[in-house]
Amino acid sequence: MRLTRTLLPVMKESPADAQIISHKLMLRAGLVRQTAAGIYAWLPLGLRVLRNIERIVREEQDRAGAIELLMPTLQSADLWRESGRYDAYGPEMLRIRDRHEREMLFGPTNEEMVTAIFRDAARSYRDLPRILYHIQWKFRDEVRPRFGVMRGREFLMKDAYSFDMDEAGARHSYNRMFVAYLNTFARMGLRAIPMQADTGPIGGDLSHEFIVLAETGESEVFYHANWERPAALRHVDFDDVAGLRSIVSGYTADYAATDEKRDAAREAGAGDALRQSRGVEVGHIFYFGTKYSSAMGLKVQAKDGSEVVPQMGSYGIGVSRLVGAIIEASHDDAGIVWPDAVAPYAVGLVNMRADDAACATAADDLYARLRTAGVETLYDDRDERGGAKFATMDLIGLPWQMVVGPKGLAKGVVELKRRATGERHELAVDDAVARIAQA
Amino acid sequence: MRLTRTLLPVMKESPADAQIISHKLMLRAGLVRQTAAGIYAWLPLGLRVLRNIERIVREEQDRAGAIELLMPTLQSADLWRESGRYDAYGPEMLRIRDRHEREMLFGPTNEEMVTAIFRDAARSYRDLPRILYHIQWKFRDEVRPRFGVMRGREFLMKDAYSFDMDEAGARHSYNRMFVAYLNTFARMGLRAIPMQADTGPIGGDLSHEFIVLAETGESEVFYHANWERPAALRHVDFDDVAGLRSIVSGYTADYAATDEKRDAAREAGAGDALRQSRGVEVGHIFYFGTKYSSAMGLKVQAKDGSEVVPQMGSYGIGVSRLVGAIIEASHDDAGIVWPDAVAPYAVGLVNMRADDAACATAADDLYARLRTAGVETLYDDRDERGGAKFATMDLIGLPWQMVVGPKGLAKGVVELKRRATGERHELAVDDAVARIAQA
Repeated sequence: MRLTRTLLPVMKESPADAQIISHKLMLRAGLVRQTAAGIYAWLPLGLRVLRNIERIVREEQDRAGAIELLMPTLQSADLWRESGRYDAYGPEMLRIRDRHEREMLFGPTNEEMVTAIFRDAARSYRDLPRILYHIQWKFRDEVRPRFGVMRGREFLMKDAYSFDMDEAGARHSYNRMFVAYLNTFARMGLRAIPMQADTGPIGGDLSHEFIVLAETGESEVFYHANWERPAALRHVDFDDVAGLRSIVSGYTADYAATDEKRDAAREAGAGDALRQSRGVEVGHIFYFGTKYSSAMGLKVQAKDGSEVVPQMGSYGIGVSRLVGAIIEASHDDAGIVWPDAVAPYAVGLVNMRADDAACATAADDLYARLRTAGVETLYDDRDERGGAKFATMDLIGLPWQMVVGPKGLAKGVVELKRRATGERHELAVDDAVARIAQA
Repeated sequence: MRLTRTLLPVMKESPADAQIISHKLMLRAGLVRQTAAGIYAWLPLGLRVLRNIERIVREEQDRAGAIELLMPTLQSADLWRESGRYDAYGPEMLRIRDRHEREMLFGPTNEEMVTAIFRDAARSYRDLPRILYHIQWKFRDEVRPRFGVMRGREFLMKDAYSFDMDEAGARHSYNRMFVAYLNTFARMGLRAIPMQADTGPIGGDLSHEFIVLAETGESEVFYHANWERPAALRHVDFDDVAGLRSIVSGYTADYAATDEKRDAAREAGAGDALRQSRGVEVGHIFYFGTKYSSAMGLKVQAKDGSEVVPQMGSYGIGVSRLVGAIIEASHDDAGIVWPDAVAPYAVGLVNMRADDAACATAADDLYARLRTAGVETLYDDRDERGGAKFATMDLIGLPWQMVVGPKGLAKGVVELKRRATGERHELAVDDAVARIAQA
């Protein structure tokens, strides 16, 4: 994409109302703009990051055997009366009346709706187990929205729901999502720590939050130093019940808990290895048995002809919040440092001297070559000084910068800079394109 | 995807409340389920079609030079007061109050919001021209929602907005979208006819609707028989002002008008070639000058230092409605006949005899081969009679069916059926896979 053809309104100064670094950088780098309290528009660069995160979440859900569908944003109040949550849910639920005075709401979560859909579709044990998920905008009417997309009101969430014939099956579904989540976050370059957590308004008796360490996080967290090892992707067979169980046991062997779930004995056991920090919740999984299936009359026929009330769980990932969480975890004084997997473009191509015809021709040619090689490129072809272009590139944090200037051209080279390390190398044009195409 | 692992609740009978064929077939084929009046959940098969349509729309918007962003579903009433439309818009606008009694609305369209975003981002002629688009859920509170997703309340729409320095530029942006729309619909196998139309609540003085002929359409339409030629994809240079203008002139030379815009003289000119039918609106484009930019104070600096109020247009495509429109245009007595470009899977693999071990092994093997070849395959591995499986495959309308049965296996062949024509061929296994992989 040529910068002269897109919309990238970067700002030199931090807006006064942004308190945390990710919020400041998202505004300065032109990723989002607030359109109402806690509600954001995603500008072109921000949308590309959001889509990359969404794609990774989707791929890992699919890999774990979950099935994608898409439920609407608006729900009928009657559905929530079936579970008893319509009156129980607090003022965070946005209640709406339509032109016929029917009571509706903007969905904050979808346990009721997915239970109704599954109740309509499933007849027997042949239709189970299933994990259904969707990636859809939700609304929670936070009393004081802040921290940008980290605690906004309209947010993009992946929520999955499992249906099993018995508790053993439900625990396997829970383990599927547990491992899928670790892989999902690892692919984004995040170390997310699963911590036993309260179940809150979802209910149930087993729950883990996945928490990314960040000084600006909303929760205080306690964990064993072993969790400071970098996250690694696990290649697993998601149908292997025992194998998955042992992976989850391994992961939960090291102590990690939020403030509400601290365990004095385990903390004493950790000794010097106990760490305290703050964290941002990026995922939350729940096993809640038949809470919704019982209340809403979901039953299926077992193999022996008897009726069974399916066991359920639900599994959320904060897709839009992850954009902020990744920036909290990956930035420096100059701006954002995107992990390759979620970066809006792989490389920023900078023509240092827009007024130099040879530079412009060489940069145009490089842009064409990079596109031919399938490299997602943002080409700063603006009529601006080199310094302003470098500052923009550092701010928006693309993993690579390729710089075309008159001195290099005279030698037949361009400069390649790795944003994360600041390392710079001069490379022949062909080598520079090949280097990035292979990255 | 194995059918035993997904959610495909097909129905034998048409639901009583569905009046038109696309609505009946979408329910019967398990594409959608209604969750409230005029609000639908997209089940896995339907979502795949919706995503394919969305992808084609996105690719053609990008090709025409439009830039994607994503605006939120909820908007502030104050934004709409700036244009004067908050009070002018009728009861189709879903008005909402949040917990602080702030007036909000679920966006039915985004002229105001995109104008505010562009006002914040653009400073000078260097920032124009731009066409910004998003693909987002909208809400219009139809008094009597019906016809399934064709006239639902929550619907997915692509809406684009152009900003130009002068009228000539705006007309070129209009022509970009005009030609992009023809290509978009042609790729979906649709003949969409551009017709001069009223501008309605959007305003402005130049507008075309893109209408697909269908007996169940909501509008009466009149057109020259030349429009009955199949649609063809045009490879064009979208930056070529004169070239695009002449393409649009060519397309509008043949008469076509909705009921409100009939032209007696041109109808007389068409003579025997005049046709009358009904149609479904799948796209609508508007040029409305400075209506929103003036009202909302959007100004940019021209090259000579003067202030210019940009010229605007807006351009909508009904993405979710297209699912219904395509079915209206492409079905037979047995069910849906998906055009290849939007089909949820390229092929349905049917094991005719689930109780025959050799058939099951051969079908499993074919499934693996098709996946390896990158062919999107729905594998009916259920323990059901062959007849039920064939009926399901015809109903859900995948372009190809590949049937594995004991007689064929004995000869080393499988049967390949083209859904659209009913043609069947017996092919050696390797040839059958290759045939579909090349389709």
